[in-house]
Amino acid sequence: MPPLSDATWQNLWETVANLSGTALPQPVGTGWTPPDRPLAALIDHTLLAPTATPADISRLTAEARAWQTAAVCVNPAYVAQAARELAGSPVLVATVAGFPLGSGTPAATAYEAHEAVQRGAAEVDMVIALGALKAGRWHEVLHHLRVVRDAVPPPLRLKVILETGLLTDEEKALGALLAAAAGADFVKTSTGFLGGGATEADVALLRRAVGPHLGVKASAGIRARADALALVAAGADRLGTSRTAAILGVSPMEVAR
Amino acid sequence: MPPLSDATWQNLWETVANLSGTALPQPVGTGWTPPDRPLAALIDHTLLAPTATPADISRLTAEARAWQTAAVCVNPAYVAQAARELAGSPVLVATVAGFPLGSGTPAATAYEAHEAVQRGAAEVDMVIALGALKAGRWHEVLHHLRVVRDAVPPPLRLKVILETGLLTDEEKALGALLAAAAGADFVKTSTGFLGGGATEADVALLRRAVGPHLGVKASAGIRARADALALVAAGADRLGTSRTAAILGVSPMEVAR
Repeated sequence: MPPLSDATWQNLWETVANLSGTALPQPVGTGWTPPDRPLAALIDHTLLAPTATPADISRLTAEARAWQTAAVCVNPAYVAQAARELAGSPVLVATVAGFPLGSGTPAATAYEAHEAVQRGAAEVDMVIALGALKAGRWHEVLHHLRVVRDAVPPPLRLKVILETGLLTDEEKALGALLAAAAGADFVKTSTGFLGGGATEADVALLRRAVGPHLGVKASAGIRARADALALVAAGADRLGTSRTAAILGVSPMEVAR
Repeated sequence: MPPLSDATWQNLWETVANLSGTALPQPVGTGWTPPDRPLAALIDHTLLAPTATPADISRLTAEARAWQTAAVCVNPAYVAQAARELAGSPVLVATVAGFPLGSGTPAATAYEAHEAVQRGAAEVDMVIALGALKAGRWHEVLHHLRVVRDAVPPPLRLKVILETGLLTDEEKALGALLAAAAGADFVKTSTGFLGGGATEADVALLRRAVGPHLGVKASAGIRARADALALVAAGADRLGTSRTAAILGVSPMEVAR
């Protein structure tokens, strides 16, 4: 598939700028340089398997504290536990809302996000309204994003998952521009549940869409250090993975059972 | 894998009866006969793909009305549309809550279920708290179920998805008994998103757990009429499927685009 043309980019940008009435930064696609931080500091150490137990979460938080990852990413049911276990540590608690389908109502997604913030989440990863995006109902997509953003106000961080594996390049670009217009802090590639993970091409596309000042999180299928480095080179400044030990070349901790 | 022994069943039943303090019906495993209704009347005509558009939902509701299925099952974002399109029809609107991971908090899952009911859902399919179930935290599992049941009071129907593909037979039985203790109307096999679909063995196990008076919904991987009939013979009185046309031997309708 050829990359989107400059004319297409300009057209999408104008569509979203007009629709949103916000001063959307021009997607410049340049001016971004990979962050000069240790790889661990770019990782959301992630465990979203629905069968994860409290003991599994304790292992995750202990590892994140030891390895100094940016955050742990856990399901809402475990936010309070993770926040308790990471108290006094610089590791943030990230969680998900309306995950992994993005097919909840704006109000229910915002409720879930707000409750997570009250329990100690500093970052919320939501899924864009995929059905509305596919149907061209961009006003609805934007409304959904804005309602959740209101529940997760800065300096809390909102990441918007596009589920790139289910989208055309034009839909990816539109989704990323809508997320930027709604004030998201990051756009993110994938949930890890619906097929398809982060690719260098998609990360580069998202970086072009949001410019140098927003975050791009690559997620799903990042298994080795080489994958991680390639995605950072392509434009990612955050990586979501459960394979943190393999990527950092360290030993996983034991789970207390 | 050999079936659970009578002694194991008795032990699980006593565990849940003591834990819940409810008069749990003895799992008799007999006395149930397949319902004497047309196959269509046992089907939840289902579309939970996150990329489904409003036009796809309109097709679903038109088909359900024409074929007289028990319900349509749609994501929360589409409950209001489905209820509007099915007004005046006997076809119910079913939706999902905390789906498909079951890893939301009780409050957020209940909020989502309550909002869906207010928008016209008559049935809510929730996912049991899989992590707590795996960890043996049955009080937490029961609490989660009861909080959502309170948000979906009778005569509204609550179905509890066990995600049998991720559970041992003992966990399936415990989950079903906990769902019965919490006052669920149905236990249900699968989400269709996390691997594994309905099997005759699992349906028979769930029917044994809940006895003849609760519902058992088989879901995921039901593609042909023979599958549907075998699952009903094994103990199912509701089937969740998107392959309704193939099962009933009718033609799908066109999607208006």
